[in-house]
Amino acid sequence: MEGTNENEPTPLGEFGEFGLIEHLTSNVLLNRENSILGVGDDAAIIAKGKKDIVVSTDMLVEGVHFDLLYTPLKHLGYKAVIVNLSDIYAMNAQPEQITVSLGLSNRFSVEAMEEFYEGIKLACELYNVDLIGGDTTSSQSGLVISITAIGRQEEKKIVRRSGAKENDLICLSGDLGAAFAGLQILEREKNIFESNEKIQPDLSGKDYILERQLKPEARKDIIQLLEKAEVIPTSMIDISDGLSSELLHISKASNVGVQIYEDKIPIDPATISAFEELNLSALTAALNGGEDYELLFTIPLEAHDKAKAMEDVTIIGHITDAASGNQLIGKGGQAMELQAQGWKSV
Amino acid sequence: MEGTNENEPTPLGEFGEFGLIEHLTSNVLLNRENSILGVGDDAAIIAKGKKDIVVSTDMLVEGVHFDLLYTPLKHLGYKAVIVNLSDIYAMNAQPEQITVSLGLSNRFSVEAMEEFYEGIKLACELYNVDLIGGDTTSSQSGLVISITAIGRQEEKKIVRRSGAKENDLICLSGDLGAAFAGLQILEREKNIFESNEKIQPDLSGKDYILERQLKPEARKDIIQLLEKAEVIPTSMIDISDGLSSELLHISKASNVGVQIYEDKIPIDPATISAFEELNLSALTAALNGGEDYELLFTIPLEAHDKAKAMEDVTIIGHITDAASGNQLIGKGGQAMELQAQGWKSV
Repeated sequence: MEGTNENEPTPLGEFGEFGLIEHLTSNVLLNRENSILGVGDDAAIIAKGKKDIVVSTDMLVEGVHFDLLYTPLKHLGYKAVIVNLSDIYAMNAQPEQITVSLGLSNRFSVEAMEEFYEGIKLACELYNVDLIGGDTTSSQSGLVISITAIGRQEEKKIVRRSGAKENDLICLSGDLGAAFAGLQILEREKNIFESNEKIQPDLSGKDYILERQLKPEARKDIIQLLEKAEVIPTSMIDISDGLSSELLHISKASNVGVQIYEDKIPIDPATISAFEELNLSALTAALNGGEDYELLFTIPLEAHDKAKAMEDVTIIGHITDAASGNQLIGKGGQAMELQAQGWKSV
Repeated sequence: MEGTNENEPTPLGEFGEFGLIEHLTSNVLLNRENSILGVGDDAAIIAKGKKDIVVSTDMLVEGVHFDLLYTPLKHLGYKAVIVNLSDIYAMNAQPEQITVSLGLSNRFSVEAMEEFYEGIKLACELYNVDLIGGDTTSSQSGLVISITAIGRQEEKKIVRRSGAKENDLICLSGDLGAAFAGLQILEREKNIFESNEKIQPDLSGKDYILERQLKPEARKDIIQLLEKAEVIPTSMIDISDGLSSELLHISKASNVGVQIYEDKIPIDPATISAFEELNLSALTAALNGGEDYELLFTIPLEAHDKAKAMEDVTIIGHITDAASGNQLIGKGGQAMELQAQGWKSV
């Protein structure tokens, strides 16, 4: 990088393809005993083990999943990892390794990608996951991030979507709708900024919902709580596309019905107040907003007391027979059919 | 899909996100005993086993890695899988599972994506690999394909880039430069077609080089030959970016020098004749062209006779000490320094 001015962004072309990925991953350490070989060969190597393997993969596309106008690259790197770890936890497994592939255009600088990798490395560190491989390629348009996460769990403890049984309790971690509230506020401020660049964004009092949107966490703690309480859920899924959509996945995969109660759905006061300000329904957001990365799971009725005792876990309903359908019982006792609205048309 | 005319392409929006991936993977069967759960949950499940795991990932971007003007979607799906399997074979391992993530814009129809998946499934079938997971998302621009391949091999048989020793023989499967020749011909005909749409492409006699570009194979057979001959290479890499670049990877990772001979580099007569027609150097293409997906490996001198007896394997040189550098010995005996030119600037 001779002759590069320290204050000028370094163009990506300064490194070759191999140089760039080598540079970005140069200080990556492998911390897990079974991570044998990381970035730098045709493939990474993971030692065999006594547990089964779970594998999840997700693609995030600029302009579809994120807007770089209000998403700091470090947060984006962090979130991209979290989204994948959340899928592994949703199998009741422990994530151990990830690979990260990037498509990026030359409007990004080396410094920008360093920032992005800072976020990736921070998530890896906090969740005790090793970055073992990846690919960096050019893209003619926006940033594309593809992450694959690999985790482990004993065969009999892995939880699918398909094991929910009639009378099981439906449990949920954390609260819903906050990430969607954060997104709405960011979009509003973006629109105001774009119509008049002199107006500074007003994000005061919005810390919680903004953090839920920009820097979400995966519920590693819930998996630990379940392990400690010796509860193996009968089914589990993470909330990426909204509660309704995920409940319908469990209902379909398990061939059961679900019944949840509006007044049990946990929504944070900050979320409620943001939706009041936005003149939108907090309940709709909780049902369809998505990106909450909370865990939705079912447990046998006998485990009721254990679930009740779990911090940050709410029992929101129960499993019925398939013929009863999928219902939301409103505050007045009226039943409404749950519908998936998680899909955003291409 | 009610009311859809059978002859009209079906827009992607007709399916939801889940519907599309479900539809495309609906007839996917899991053939390997250790593929426990495929597409349709938060993560796929692979049974534990007695061998270590190797993981490789690659991203292919429209306009950078492929041009849909002359790449049939079925071939593209096939090639996208092959590229990844090649990395697994390059570890001397057996690929067993893949995940496929796609970013696609609404200019693609459901039928186009079915064609793409036909290619993916065909490659899976021929290489005995299971498609166990993936993600489908919208993209505002071109098609983005990210594939992760998972393979297995006993710890002591896994081959890295870093094990080459002085006096080892450098071996190469197949022949080089053909995929690059195919690309040049396709680009030439595209330019002619774009300047005058009445001129039909002239691709006669180009079957071999076009197939090498559009429908390459991974050298599963070489891994089997090595196993049968009880030869474990000291180092191995697949040729994705050109012979020079891959030799330099081995040289660097193994801290050795390499010496190869121009007159030993295998180039098919069809490749030579195409480059004569194009007024380009076939040698340069063999050294720097890329996308050959042949295997480059080193073996101890004692294994010379075994390598000699292997069909479609050529000994092209030997490993020297690091101080001797990385050299190509020309037909007249002159030494030239090998240089990586595989990188295409972003």
